Amino acid sequence: MKIKGRNAVREALNSDVNIIRIMVSNSSKDKVLLDIVSLAKKKGVKIQYLDNKILDKECDNNQGIIADTSDFKYSTVEDILQVAKDKNKNNFILILDGIEDPHNFGSIIRVAECLGVDGIIISKNRACPVNDTVSKVSAGAIEHVKIAKVTNINTEIERLKQNNIWVYACELGGEDLDSADLSGNIAVVVGSEGDGVSRLTRKICDGVVSMQMYGKVNSLNVSVATGIVLYEIVRKNRS
Amino acid sequence: MKIKGRNAVREALNSDVNIIRIMVSNSSKDKVLLDIVSLAKKKGVKIQYLDNKILDKECDNNQGIIADTSDFKYSTVEDILQVAKDKNKNNFILILDGIEDPHNFGSIIRVAECLGVDGIIISKNRACPVNDTVSKVSAGAIEHVKIAKVTNINTEIERLKQNNIWVYACELGGEDLDSADLSGNIAVVVGSEGDGVSRLTRKICDGVVSMQMYGKVNSLNVSVATGIVLYEIVRKNRS
Repeated sequence: MKIKGRNAVREALNSDVNIIRIMVSNSSKDKVLLDIVSLAKKKGVKIQYLDNKILDKECDNNQGIIADTSDFKYSTVEDILQVAKDKNKNNFILILDGIEDPHNFGSIIRVAECLGVDGIIISKNRACPVNDTVSKVSAGAIEHVKIAKVTNINTEIERLKQNNIWVYACELGGEDLDSADLSGNIAVVVGSEGDGVSRLTRKICDGVVSMQMYGKVNSLNVSVATGIVLYEIVRKNRS
Repeated sequence: MKIKGRNAVREALNSDVNIIRIMVSNSSKDKVLLDIVSLAKKKGVKIQYLDNKILDKECDNNQGIIADTSDFKYSTVEDILQVAKDKNKNNFILILDGIEDPHNFGSIIRVAECLGVDGIIISKNRACPVNDTVSKVSAGAIEHVKIAKVTNINTEIERLKQNNIWVYACELGGEDLDSADLSGNIAVVVGSEGDGVSRLTRKICDGVVSMQMYGKVNSLNVSVATGIVLYEIVRKNRS
Protein backbone atom coordinates (compact mmCIF):
# COMPACT_ATOMS: atom_id res chain seq x y z
CA MET A 1 0.00 0.00 0.00
CA LYS A 2 1.21 3.53 -0.75
CA ILE A 3 0.70 6.53 1.56
CA LYS A 4 1.21 9.92 -0.10
CA GLY A 5 1.64 13.47 1.07
CA ARG A 6 3.57 15.08 3.90
CA ASN A 7 1.11 14.83 6.77
CA ALA A 8 0.01 11.30 5.93
CA VAL A 9 3.59 10.04 5.67
CA ARG A 10 4.61 11.78 8.91
CA GLU A 11 1.63 10.24 10.69
CA ALA A 12 2.41 6.81 9.28
CA LEU A 13 5.99 7.12 10.55
CA ASN A 14 4.71 7.93 14.02
CA SER A 15 2.26 5.02 14.01
CA ASP A 16 2.50 1.23 13.98
CA VAL A 17 2.27 1.04 10.19
CA ASN A 18 5.09 -1.07 8.77
CA ILE A 19 6.88 1.16 6.27
CA ILE A 20 9.25 -0.55 3.85
CA ARG A 21 10.67 2.63 2.27
CA ILE A 22 10.08 6.32 1.74
CA MET A 23 10.33 7.70 -1.79
CA VAL A 24 11.27 11.39 -1.80
CA SER A 25 11.65 13.98 -4.52
CA ASN A 26 15.31 14.50 -5.36
CA SER A 27 14.74 18.11 -6.37
CA SER A 28 13.09 19.54 -3.25
CA LYS A 29 14.92 21.16 -0.37
CA ASP A 30 11.76 22.01 1.50
CA LYS A 31 12.29 22.00 5.28
CA VAL A 32 9.10 20.07 6.10
CA LEU A 33 10.17 17.33 3.68
CA LEU A 34 13.68 17.22 5.15
CA ASP A 35 12.19 16.88 8.65
CA ILE A 36 10.12 13.90 7.56
CA VAL A 37 13.17 12.32 5.91
CA SER A 38 15.15 12.81 9.10
CA LEU A 39 12.33 11.18 11.13
CA ALA A 40 12.29 8.25 8.68
CA LYS A 41 16.07 7.85 9.00
CA LYS A 42 15.76 7.81 12.79
CA LYS A 43 13.23 5.00 12.47
CA GLY A 44 15.58 3.05 10.21
CA VAL A 45 13.35 3.33 7.17
CA LYS A 46 15.02 3.10 3.76
CA ILE A 47 14.98 6.39 1.81
CA GLN A 48 14.93 6.54 -1.98
CA TYR A 49 15.49 9.86 -3.78
CA LEU A 50 13.63 9.88 -7.09
CA ASP A 51 12.71 12.23 -9.91
CA ASN A 52 9.32 13.92 -9.58
CA LYS A 53 8.24 12.17 -12.78
CA ILE A 54 8.81 8.75 -11.21
CA LEU A 55 7.08 9.81 -8.00
CA ASP A 56 4.06 11.00 -10.00
CA LYS A 57 3.90 7.62 -11.70
CA GLU A 58 3.71 5.91 -8.28
CA CYS A 59 0.93 8.25 -6.98
CA ASP A 60 -0.30 11.65 -8.17
CA ASN A 61 -0.63 14.63 -5.77
CA ASN A 62 2.18 13.22 -3.65
CA GLN A 63 3.66 16.54 -2.41
CA GLY A 64 7.11 15.09 -3.06
CA ILE A 65 6.84 12.15 -0.66
CA ILE A 66 5.38 8.64 -0.73
CA ALA A 67 5.64 5.85 1.84
CA ASP A 68 5.56 2.25 0.71
CA THR A 69 3.97 0.12 3.41
CA SER A 70 3.95 -3.60 3.84
CA ASP A 71 0.83 -5.67 3.94
CA PHE A 72 2.31 -7.91 6.60
CA LYS A 73 -0.11 -8.35 9.48
CA TYR A 74 1.65 -8.47 12.80
CA SER A 75 0.13 -10.59 15.54
CA THR A 76 -0.16 -9.68 19.21
CA VAL A 77 1.56 -11.44 22.09
CA GLU A 78 -1.93 -12.68 23.06
CA ASP A 79 -2.26 -14.34 19.64
CA ILE A 80 1.06 -16.12 20.25
CA LEU A 81 0.03 -17.22 23.76
CA GLN A 82 -3.25 -18.52 22.35
CA VAL A 83 -1.44 -21.04 20.09
CA ALA A 84 -0.41 -23.28 23.00
CA LYS A 85 -3.88 -22.98 24.55
CA ASP A 86 -5.59 -23.98 21.31
CA LYS A 87 -3.28 -26.94 20.79
CA ASN A 88 -3.21 -27.87 24.48
CA LYS A 89 0.59 -27.98 24.46
CA ASN A 90 3.50 -26.15 26.09
CA ASN A 91 4.36 -22.60 25.02
CA PHE A 92 7.37 -22.31 22.71
CA ILE A 93 8.22 -18.68 21.96
CA LEU A 94 11.21 -16.95 20.37
CA ILE A 95 12.13 -13.39 21.34
CA LEU A 96 14.54 -11.39 19.19
CA ASP A 97 16.41 -8.62 20.96
CA GLY A 98 17.68 -6.24 18.30
CA ILE A 99 18.20 -8.36 15.17
CA GLU A 100 18.85 -5.66 12.58
CA ASP A 101 20.01 -7.66 9.56
CA PRO A 102 17.07 -8.67 7.32
CA HIS A 103 18.91 -11.79 6.08
CA ASN A 104 19.43 -13.05 9.61
CA PHE A 105 15.84 -12.19 10.53
CA GLY A 106 14.49 -14.04 7.47
CA SER A 107 16.67 -17.06 8.12
CA ILE A 108 15.55 -17.14 11.78
CA ILE A 109 11.88 -17.05 10.72
CA ARG A 110 12.62 -19.97 8.40
CA VAL A 111 14.12 -22.22 11.09
CA ALA A 112 11.53 -21.12 13.68
CA GLU A 113 8.79 -22.25 11.30
CA CYS A 114 10.47 -25.63 10.74
CA LEU A 115 10.80 -26.25 14.44
CA GLY A 116 7.23 -25.24 15.22
CA VAL A 117 7.55 -22.16 17.43
CA ASP A 118 4.24 -20.57 18.46
CA GLY A 119 5.49 -17.15 17.44
CA ILE A 120 8.29 -14.59 17.43
CA ILE A 121 8.34 -11.39 19.48
CA ILE A 122 10.42 -8.50 18.11
CA SER A 123 10.99 -4.97 19.31
CA LYS A 124 9.66 -1.83 17.62
CA ASN A 125 12.99 -0.09 18.05
CA ARG A 126 16.48 -1.26 17.24
CA ALA A 127 15.15 -4.13 15.11
CA CYS A 128 14.53 -4.98 11.49
CA PRO A 129 10.78 -5.02 10.73
CA VAL A 130 9.24 -7.51 8.31
CA ASN A 131 10.11 -6.17 4.88
CA ASP A 132 10.56 -7.54 1.37
CA THR A 133 14.07 -8.92 2.02
CA VAL A 134 13.00 -10.63 5.23
CA SER A 135 10.01 -12.14 3.47
CA LYS A 136 12.13 -13.39 0.55
CA VAL A 137 14.86 -14.89 2.75
CA SER A 138 12.23 -16.61 4.91
CA ALA A 139 11.35 -18.70 1.83
CA GLY A 140 7.64 -18.41 2.49
CA ALA A 141 7.85 -19.22 6.21
CA ILE A 142 6.72 -15.66 7.01
CA GLU A 143 3.18 -16.66 6.06
CA HIS A 144 3.06 -19.32 8.76
CA VAL A 145 4.76 -17.79 11.79
CA LYS A 146 3.05 -15.27 14.07
CA ILE A 147 5.23 -12.22 14.66
CA ALA A 148 4.41 -9.65 17.35
CA LYS A 149 6.12 -6.25 17.35
CA VAL A 150 6.20 -4.80 20.86
CA THR A 151 7.23 -1.47 22.39
CA ASN A 152 9.23 -2.96 25.22
CA ILE A 153 10.63 -6.48 25.19
CA ASN A 154 11.29 -6.48 28.93
CA THR A 155 7.65 -5.73 29.75
CA GLU A 156 6.64 -8.67 27.56
CA ILE A 157 9.17 -10.96 29.23
CA GLU A 158 7.66 -10.08 32.62
CA ARG A 159 4.23 -10.87 31.20
CA LEU A 160 5.41 -14.26 29.87
CA LYS A 161 6.89 -15.06 33.27
CA GLN A 162 3.51 -14.27 34.89
CA ASN A 163 2.02 -16.76 32.43
CA ASN A 164 4.28 -19.49 33.88
CA ILE A 165 6.65 -19.43 30.93
CA TRP A 166 10.36 -19.88 31.63
CA VAL A 167 12.38 -17.29 29.76
CA TYR A 168 16.00 -18.05 28.90
CA ALA A 169 18.55 -15.78 27.28
CA CYS A 170 20.99 -17.39 24.83
CA GLU A 171 24.37 -15.93 25.63
CA LEU A 172 27.95 -16.81 26.35
CA GLY A 173 28.79 -17.74 29.91
CA GLY A 174 25.50 -19.39 30.85
CA GLU A 175 24.43 -22.90 31.72
CA ASP A 176 25.43 -25.55 29.17
CA LEU A 177 22.60 -25.90 26.64
CA ASP A 178 23.12 -29.66 26.74
CA SER A 179 22.44 -30.07 30.47
CA ALA A 180 19.93 -27.23 30.91
CA ASP A 181 16.36 -28.21 31.75
CA LEU A 182 14.42 -26.72 28.90
CA SER A 183 11.19 -28.61 29.31
CA GLY A 184 7.76 -27.09 29.88
CA ASN A 185 6.65 -23.63 28.78
CA ILE A 186 9.70 -22.01 27.23
CA ALA A 187 10.64 -18.68 25.66
CA VAL A 188 14.18 -18.02 24.44
CA VAL A 189 15.75 -14.62 23.87
CA VAL A 190 18.36 -14.24 21.14
CA GLY A 191 20.38 -11.03 20.79
CA SER A 192 22.03 -9.27 17.89
CA GLU A 193 25.30 -10.54 16.43
CA GLY A 194 27.14 -7.47 17.62
CA ASP A 195 25.79 -6.86 21.09
CA GLY A 196 24.05 -10.05 22.16
CA VAL A 197 21.13 -9.89 24.59
CA SER A 198 21.04 -6.50 26.31
CA ARG A 199 22.08 -6.43 29.96
CA LEU A 200 18.74 -5.55 31.52
CA THR A 201 16.91 -8.14 29.42
CA ARG A 202 19.40 -10.80 30.42
CA LYS A 203 18.94 -9.84 34.06
CA ILE A 204 15.16 -10.34 34.08
CA CYS A 205 15.36 -13.73 32.31
CA ASP A 206 15.00 -16.87 34.42
CA GLY A 207 18.35 -18.12 33.20
CA VAL A 208 21.07 -17.98 30.57
CA VAL A 209 21.99 -20.91 28.33
CA SER A 210 25.12 -21.28 26.19
CA MET A 211 26.34 -23.63 23.54
CA GLN A 212 29.64 -25.30 24.23
CA MET A 213 32.19 -24.30 21.60
CA TYR A 214 35.27 -26.22 20.50
CA GLY A 215 37.07 -23.92 18.09
CA LYS A 216 39.39 -20.96 18.20
CA VAL A 217 37.18 -18.30 16.63
CA ASN A 218 33.93 -19.61 18.13
CA SER A 219 31.73 -17.08 16.42
CA LEU A 220 28.35 -18.21 15.17
CA ASN A 221 25.92 -16.63 12.78
CA VAL A 222 22.86 -15.69 14.84
CA SER A 223 20.45 -17.68 12.67
CA VAL A 224 22.62 -20.80 12.97
CA ALA A 225 22.86 -20.35 16.75
CA THR A 226 19.09 -19.83 16.99
CA GLY A 227 18.50 -22.98 14.93
CA ILE A 228 20.66 -25.07 17.25
CA VAL A 229 18.99 -23.74 20.42
CA LEU A 230 15.46 -24.21 19.05
CA TYR A 231 16.30 -27.74 17.87
CA GLU A 232 17.67 -28.59 21.30
CA ILE A 233 14.48 -27.36 23.01
CA VAL A 234 12.32 -29.41 20.64
CA ARG A 235 14.49 -32.49 21.16
CA LYS A 236 14.35 -32.20 24.95
CA ASN A 237 10.60 -31.76 24.95
CA ARG A 238 10.12 -34.77 22.73
CA SER A 239 12.15 -37.21 24.79
CA MET B 1 48.67 -13.14 -6.08
CA LYS B 2 48.17 -11.89 -9.64
CA ILE B 3 48.78 -13.97 -12.78
CA LYS B 4 49.08 -11.95 -15.99
CA GLY B 5 49.05 -12.70 -19.67
CA ARG B 6 47.00 -15.00 -21.87
CA ASN B 7 48.93 -18.25 -21.60
CA ALA B 8 49.56 -17.93 -17.87
CA VAL B 9 45.91 -17.21 -17.11
CA ARG B 10 44.70 -20.06 -19.34
CA GLU B 11 47.09 -22.46 -17.60
CA ALA B 12 46.00 -21.26 -14.18
CA LEU B 13 42.36 -21.86 -15.14
CA ASN B 14 43.21 -25.41 -16.15
CA SER B 15 45.16 -26.09 -12.96
CA ASP B 16 44.30 -26.36 -9.25
CA VAL B 17 45.09 -22.70 -8.61
CA ASN B 18 42.23 -21.01 -6.76
CA ILE B 19 41.19 -18.07 -8.93
CA ILE B 20 38.97 -15.44 -7.29
CA ARG B 21 38.33 -13.37 -10.43
CA ILE B 22 39.57 -12.60 -13.92
CA MET B 23 40.11 -8.97 -14.90
CA VAL B 24 39.76 -8.46 -18.67
CA SER B 25 40.21 -5.47 -20.93
CA ASN B 26 36.83 -3.99 -21.85
CA SER B 27 38.11 -2.77 -25.21
CA SER B 28 39.45 -5.97 -26.74
CA LYS B 29 37.48 -8.34 -28.92
CA ASP B 30 40.43 -10.62 -29.55
CA LYS B 31 39.36 -14.24 -30.07
CA VAL B 32 42.05 -15.75 -27.81
CA LEU B 33 40.95 -13.47 -24.99
CA LEU B 34 37.29 -14.33 -25.52
CA ASP B 35 38.16 -18.04 -25.41
CA ILE B 36 39.87 -17.61 -22.05
CA VAL B 37 36.90 -15.63 -20.73
CA SER B 38 34.56 -18.36 -21.86
CA LEU B 39 36.75 -20.98 -20.12
CA ALA B 40 36.68 -18.87 -16.94
CA LYS B 41 32.89 -18.58 -17.12
CA LYS B 42 32.63 -22.35 -17.47
CA LYS B 43 34.69 -22.73 -14.31
CA GLY B 44 32.42 -20.30 -12.48
CA VAL B 45 35.11 -17.66 -12.08
CA LYS B 46 33.94 -14.06 -11.70
CA ILE B 47 34.81 -11.84 -14.69
CA GLN B 48 35.44 -8.10 -14.40
CA TYR B 49 35.71 -5.95 -17.50
CA LEU B 50 38.02 -3.01 -16.88
CA ASP B 51 39.71 -0.14 -18.72
CA ASN B 52 43.22 -0.88 -19.95
CA LYS B 53 44.49 1.91 -17.69
CA ILE B 54 43.15 0.14 -14.60
CA LEU B 55 44.52 -3.22 -15.77
CA ASP B 56 47.95 -1.63 -16.29
CA LYS B 57 47.85 -0.30 -12.75
CA GLU B 58 47.24 -3.86 -11.47
CA CYS B 59 50.13 -5.39 -13.52
CA ASP B 60 52.05 -4.10 -16.54
CA ASN B 61 52.46 -6.21 -19.69
CA ASN B 62 49.19 -7.95 -18.96
CA GLN B 63 48.10 -8.64 -22.59
CA GLY B 64 44.57 -7.57 -21.56
CA ILE B 65 44.01 -10.24 -18.92
CA ILE B 66 44.90 -10.74 -15.26
CA ALA B 67 43.81 -13.48 -12.86
CA ASP B 68 43.50 -12.70 -9.17
CA THR B 69 44.32 -15.83 -7.17
CA SER B 70 43.70 -16.58 -3.56
CA ASP B 71 46.44 -17.34 -1.12
CA PHE B 72 44.25 -19.86 0.64
CA LYS B 73 46.12 -23.11 1.17
CA TYR B 74 43.90 -26.11 0.71
CA SER B 75 44.63 -29.17 2.79
CA THR B 76 44.49 -32.77 1.62
CA VAL B 77 42.10 -35.45 2.86
CA GLU B 78 45.17 -37.05 4.51
CA ASP B 79 45.73 -33.82 6.49
CA ILE B 80 42.13 -34.00 7.70
CA LEU B 81 42.42 -37.69 8.63
CA GLN B 82 45.62 -36.92 10.51
CA VAL B 83 43.80 -34.55 12.93
CA ALA B 84 42.00 -37.39 14.73
CA LYS B 85 45.19 -39.46 14.82
CA ASP B 86 47.19 -36.60 16.35
CA LYS B 87 44.53 -35.89 18.97
CA ASN B 88 43.76 -39.58 19.53
CA LYS B 89 40.05 -38.96 19.07
CA ASN B 90 37.27 -39.96 16.70
CA ASN B 91 37.15 -38.56 13.17
CA PHE B 92 34.60 -35.78 12.64
CA ILE B 93 34.46 -34.70 9.01
CA LEU B 94 32.07 -32.55 6.99
CA ILE B 95 31.59 -33.12 3.26
CA LEU B 96 29.88 -30.48 1.12
CA ASP B 97 28.24 -31.77 -2.04
CA GLY B 98 27.80 -28.80 -4.34
CA ILE B 99 27.41 -25.76 -2.05
CA GLU B 100 27.59 -22.95 -4.61
CA ASP B 101 26.59 -19.91 -2.55
CA PRO B 102 29.62 -18.23 -0.92
CA HIS B 103 27.51 -16.89 1.98
CA ASN B 104 26.28 -20.36 2.84
CA PHE B 105 29.79 -21.80 2.45
CA GLY B 106 31.27 -19.12 4.74
CA SER B 107 28.57 -19.60 7.32
CA ILE B 108 29.09 -23.38 7.26
CA ILE B 109 32.85 -22.93 7.81
CA ARG B 110 32.01 -20.70 10.78
CA VAL B 111 29.78 -23.25 12.53
CA ALA B 112 32.11 -26.15 11.61
CA GLU B 113 34.95 -24.31 13.36
CA CYS B 114 32.83 -23.68 16.47
CA LEU B 115 31.86 -27.32 16.71
CA GLY B 116 35.39 -28.60 16.18
CA VAL B 117 35.24 -30.54 12.92
CA ASP B 118 38.57 -32.00 11.75
CA GLY B 119 38.05 -30.58 8.28
CA ILE B 120 35.73 -29.97 5.35
CA ILE B 121 35.88 -31.78 2.02
CA ILE B 122 34.53 -29.91 -1.02
CA SER B 123 34.36 -30.78 -4.68
CA LYS B 124 36.41 -29.14 -7.41
CA ASN B 125 33.38 -28.91 -9.65
CA ARG B 126 29.90 -27.63 -8.98
CA ALA B 127 31.06 -25.92 -5.77
CA CYS B 128 32.08 -22.51 -4.55
CA PRO B 129 35.84 -22.37 -3.88
CA VAL B 130 37.31 -20.39 -0.98
CA ASN B 131 37.18 -16.77 -2.13
CA ASP B 132 37.04 -13.32 -0.54
CA THR B 133 33.31 -13.48 0.22
CA VAL B 134 33.60 -16.94 1.79
CA SER B 135 36.54 -15.77 3.87
CA LYS B 136 34.70 -12.64 5.05
CA VAL B 137 31.47 -14.46 5.92
CA SER B 138 33.45 -17.09 7.83
CA ALA B 139 34.42 -14.32 10.29
CA GLY B 140 38.00 -15.57 10.47
CA ALA B 141 37.10 -19.24 10.93
CA ILE B 142 38.64 -20.00 7.53
CA GLU B 143 42.10 -19.71 9.12
CA HIS B 144 41.38 -22.54 11.52
CA VAL B 145 39.51 -25.15 9.49
CA LYS B 146 41.23 -27.53 7.09
CA ILE B 147 39.51 -27.59 3.71
CA ALA B 148 40.33 -30.21 1.07
CA LYS B 149 39.21 -29.72 -2.53
CA VAL B 150 38.83 -33.07 -4.27
CA THR B 151 38.13 -34.20 -7.81
CA ASN B 152 35.52 -36.76 -6.89
CA ILE B 153 33.60 -36.72 -3.64
CA ASN B 154 32.39 -40.30 -4.08
CA THR B 155 35.96 -41.65 -4.34
CA GLU B 156 36.80 -39.85 -1.11
CA ILE B 157 33.71 -41.21 0.63
CA GLU B 158 34.82 -44.74 -0.31
CA ARG B 159 38.24 -43.94 1.14
CA LEU B 160 36.74 -42.66 4.40
CA LYS B 161 34.66 -45.82 4.66
CA GLN B 162 37.83 -47.90 4.24
CA ASN B 163 39.26 -45.88 7.16
CA ASN B 164 36.39 -47.11 9.36
CA ILE B 165 34.54 -43.83 9.20
CA TRP B 166 30.74 -43.95 9.03
CA VAL B 167 29.48 -41.63 6.34
CA TYR B 168 25.93 -40.24 6.62
CA ALA B 169 24.06 -38.09 4.14
CA CYS B 170 21.79 -35.40 5.59
CA GLU B 171 18.61 -35.55 3.57
CA LEU B 172 14.86 -35.72 3.84
CA GLY B 173 13.38 -39.18 4.31
CA GLY B 174 16.19 -40.72 6.35
CA GLU B 175 16.52 -41.98 9.91
CA ASP B 176 15.51 -39.44 12.58
CA LEU B 177 18.59 -37.45 13.58
CA ASP B 178 17.47 -37.68 17.19
CA SER B 179 17.50 -41.48 17.37
CA ALA B 180 20.34 -42.18 14.88
CA ASP B 181 23.54 -43.63 16.33
CA LEU B 182 26.11 -41.03 15.38
CA SER B 183 28.89 -42.07 17.72
CA GLY B 184 32.38 -43.07 16.67
CA ASN B 185 34.19 -41.96 13.52
CA ILE B 186 31.70 -39.85 11.60
CA ALA B 187 31.56 -37.94 8.32
CA VAL B 188 28.38 -36.14 7.24
CA VAL B 189 27.50 -35.12 3.72
CA VAL B 190 25.42 -31.99 3.18
CA GLY B 191 24.02 -31.13 -0.25
CA SER B 192 23.11 -27.89 -1.96
CA GLU B 193 19.92 -26.00 -1.09
CA GLY B 194 18.45 -26.67 -4.48
CA ASP B 195 19.36 -30.26 -5.19
CA GLY B 196 20.38 -31.81 -1.87
CA VAL B 197 22.89 -34.66 -1.80
CA SER B 198 23.28 -36.16 -5.26
CA ARG B 199 21.72 -39.57 -5.82
CA LEU B 200 24.88 -41.60 -6.31
CA THR B 201 26.58 -40.00 -3.30
CA ARG B 202 23.57 -40.74 -1.16
CA LYS B 203 23.64 -44.34 -2.35
CA ILE B 204 27.24 -45.00 -1.29
CA CYS B 205 26.75 -43.44 2.17
CA ASP B 206 26.29 -45.77 5.14
CA GLY B 207 23.00 -44.11 5.98
CA VAL B 208 20.77 -41.07 5.65
CA VAL B 209 19.73 -38.91 8.60
CA SER B 210 16.94 -36.32 8.68
CA MET B 211 15.77 -33.65 11.04
CA GLN B 212 12.18 -33.91 12.13
CA MET B 213 10.26 -30.83 11.00
CA TYR B 214 7.10 -29.39 12.53
CA GLY B 215 6.06 -26.58 10.20
CA LYS B 216 4.25 -26.12 6.93
CA VAL B 217 7.08 -24.78 4.76
CA ASN B 218 9.82 -26.84 6.41
CA SER B 219 12.63 -25.37 4.39
CA LEU B 220 15.94 -24.74 6.13
CA ASN B 221 18.91 -22.67 5.13
CA VAL B 222 21.75 -25.14 4.49
CA SER B 223 24.11 -23.52 6.99
CA VAL B 224 21.44 -23.64 9.72
CA ALA B 225 20.71 -27.30 8.90
CA THR B 226 24.43 -28.12 8.94
CA GLY B 227 24.82 -26.37 12.30
CA ILE B 228 22.03 -28.44 13.84
CA VAL B 229 23.39 -31.74 12.50
CA LEU B 230 26.96 -31.00 13.62
CA TYR B 231 25.75 -29.92 17.07
CA GLU B 232 23.77 -33.11 17.40
CA ILE B 233 26.82 -35.25 16.53
CA VAL B 234 28.96 -33.39 19.07
CA ARG B 235 26.27 -33.72 21.74
CA LYS B 236 25.90 -37.47 21.13
CA ASN B 237 29.62 -38.08 21.27
CA ARG B 238 29.92 -36.14 24.51
CA SER B 239 27.22 -37.98 26.41
